[in-house]
Amino acid sequence: MKLVRYGNPGKEKPGLIDAEGKLRDLSAVVGDIGPAQLSEAVLAKLRKQNPAKLPLVRGKPRMGCPVANIGKFIAIGLNYADHAAESGVPIPKEPVVFMKATSCIQGPNDDVMLPKGSVKTDWEVELGVVIGTRARYVSKKEALNHVAGYAVVNDVSEREFQLERGPQWDKGKGCDTFGPIGPWLVTRDEIENVQKLEMWLDVNGKRMQKGSTKTMIFGVAHLVSYVSQFMTLMPGDVITTGTPPGVGLGMKPPLYLKKGDVMALGIQGLGEQQQRVVAFKA
Amino acid sequence: MKLVRYGNPGKEKPGLIDAEGKLRDLSAVVGDIGPAQLSEAVLAKLRKQNPAKLPLVRGKPRMGCPVANIGKFIAIGLNYADHAAESGVPIPKEPVVFMKATSCIQGPNDDVMLPKGSVKTDWEVELGVVIGTRARYVSKKEALNHVAGYAVVNDVSEREFQLERGPQWDKGKGCDTFGPIGPWLVTRDEIENVQKLEMWLDVNGKRMQKGSTKTMIFGVAHLVSYVSQFMTLMPGDVITTGTPPGVGLGMKPPLYLKKGDVMALGIQGLGEQQQRVVAFKA
Repeated sequence: MKLVRYGNPGKEKPGLIDAEGKLRDLSAVVGDIGPAQLSEAVLAKLRKQNPAKLPLVRGKPRMGCPVANIGKFIAIGLNYADHAAESGVPIPKEPVVFMKATSCIQGPNDDVMLPKGSVKTDWEVELGVVIGTRARYVSKKEALNHVAGYAVVNDVSEREFQLERGPQWDKGKGCDTFGPIGPWLVTRDEIENVQKLEMWLDVNGKRMQKGSTKTMIFGVAHLVSYVSQFMTLMPGDVITTGTPPGVGLGMKPPLYLKKGDVMALGIQGLGEQQQRVVAFKA
Repeated sequence: MKLVRYGNPGKEKPGLIDAEGKLRDLSAVVGDIGPAQLSEAVLAKLRKQNPAKLPLVRGKPRMGCPVANIGKFIAIGLNYADHAAESGVPIPKEPVVFMKATSCIQGPNDDVMLPKGSVKTDWEVELGVVIGTRARYVSKKEALNHVAGYAVVNDVSEREFQLERGPQWDKGKGCDTFGPIGPWLVTRDEIENVQKLEMWLDVNGKRMQKGSTKTMIFGVAHLVSYVSQFMTLMPGDVITTGTPPGVGLGMKPPLYLKKGDVMALGIQGLGEQQQRVVAFKA
């Protein structure tokens, strides 16, 4: 299933995308798509719906983040060998874990705002993993059973805040609007092999990132298992799993986002996002 | 006011501590103490209650974290000059910001569990600042107006996970049970000068940390203003503001927590916590 939340910010309704790509309303079946709806039991109930019988949503409503009330937005750094190389750092021996502020989460096509004084705002197309059931010290073998599904994430990053303002990255990762997620939460059963998905990101129509989840250093099962050794993963938590090469920081000279730029990005089977970059506004 | 949440985990009720130190039930006045109750308007309504007329709670119920549904648990590193020195690192030029997983939050006297395989679990008594109203790019002068109140935090830390498993600290800061908060949320009006509070932490009755918020490198107003430049602070967010000297990492040789140890800690005017250290259990 491709689950969505559509409508104005803070007032999103649950929906699904049917086999013809049409948006169907799920409000009569579930109150929202959030932690309480990500269990196997509720997903099974949603699967039993006949999409053709669900109300068709007319027009082109805004898409929100497909998961409500994300508790933790966990991120993995330098998880593609080529991206580690372009960042000028060695391949990590084990996953690098940091966190994005949950207040940065927004819909997949909402504007990305340059923070006040920012001169190094950058893009990162990433595979987001949405946790479905509580995971604590789970093995690699069990790990995927705890995953509800996947979504495209743009791990927008301010490199000066991240790298030049002290040793910890979180400062440059959680600015408002820095967490577009969606358009869809694609349930795990729809993805045949999560380690074989093409991904890409364009800025102003020019291809900047092109990669595949097959070149991840640590795969999704490894990451879910790994993070669960350090903190309990809860339904609705999201792990964004690192970015392939082609970020602005890695260009020679580096290239950063400016007002008016348009980012478009996508992952095979998970849909596409598009964000306009806007100046800081109070 | 001294606001509390008491009762079994996940079923806490709101309460307040009256002038005689007695626990009074607030259930008939507010549903909980959480983001929606931290505004000036709701706090004013609570102040109007006559504590003597609120139901007295008998016995000694467990205390929960005094704030429900904390969205972000933001932490400041190396914010006391002496602690930076004992950690062997220079005084930061600007605040170091990292994040604790919200899943680590617990009541002030709940057991602290050593993570599986941990050999370097350490203590940190800290002043926690609870945000009352949305704060985004606020000045130092305005900053305290956005603070609902203060609470004791034990920023429990696994030093191997934090410092020896990659460049980012979050891995060693958000393990389950690593975030005791409370016993009370003391509203801002009760604290005459937040930069003049004595603080202390004992392990097994031995004084390990002794300090005062007056030796913070960056004071509370500075920190709230500073963090609000990087992410919007929401009602119920907590900023824990760094620890004074005396942590286990700084001992020669370093000293870490083991099963059976008891931590007791407190801050002037904000009450005391006590945690038993227990072995990992699945």
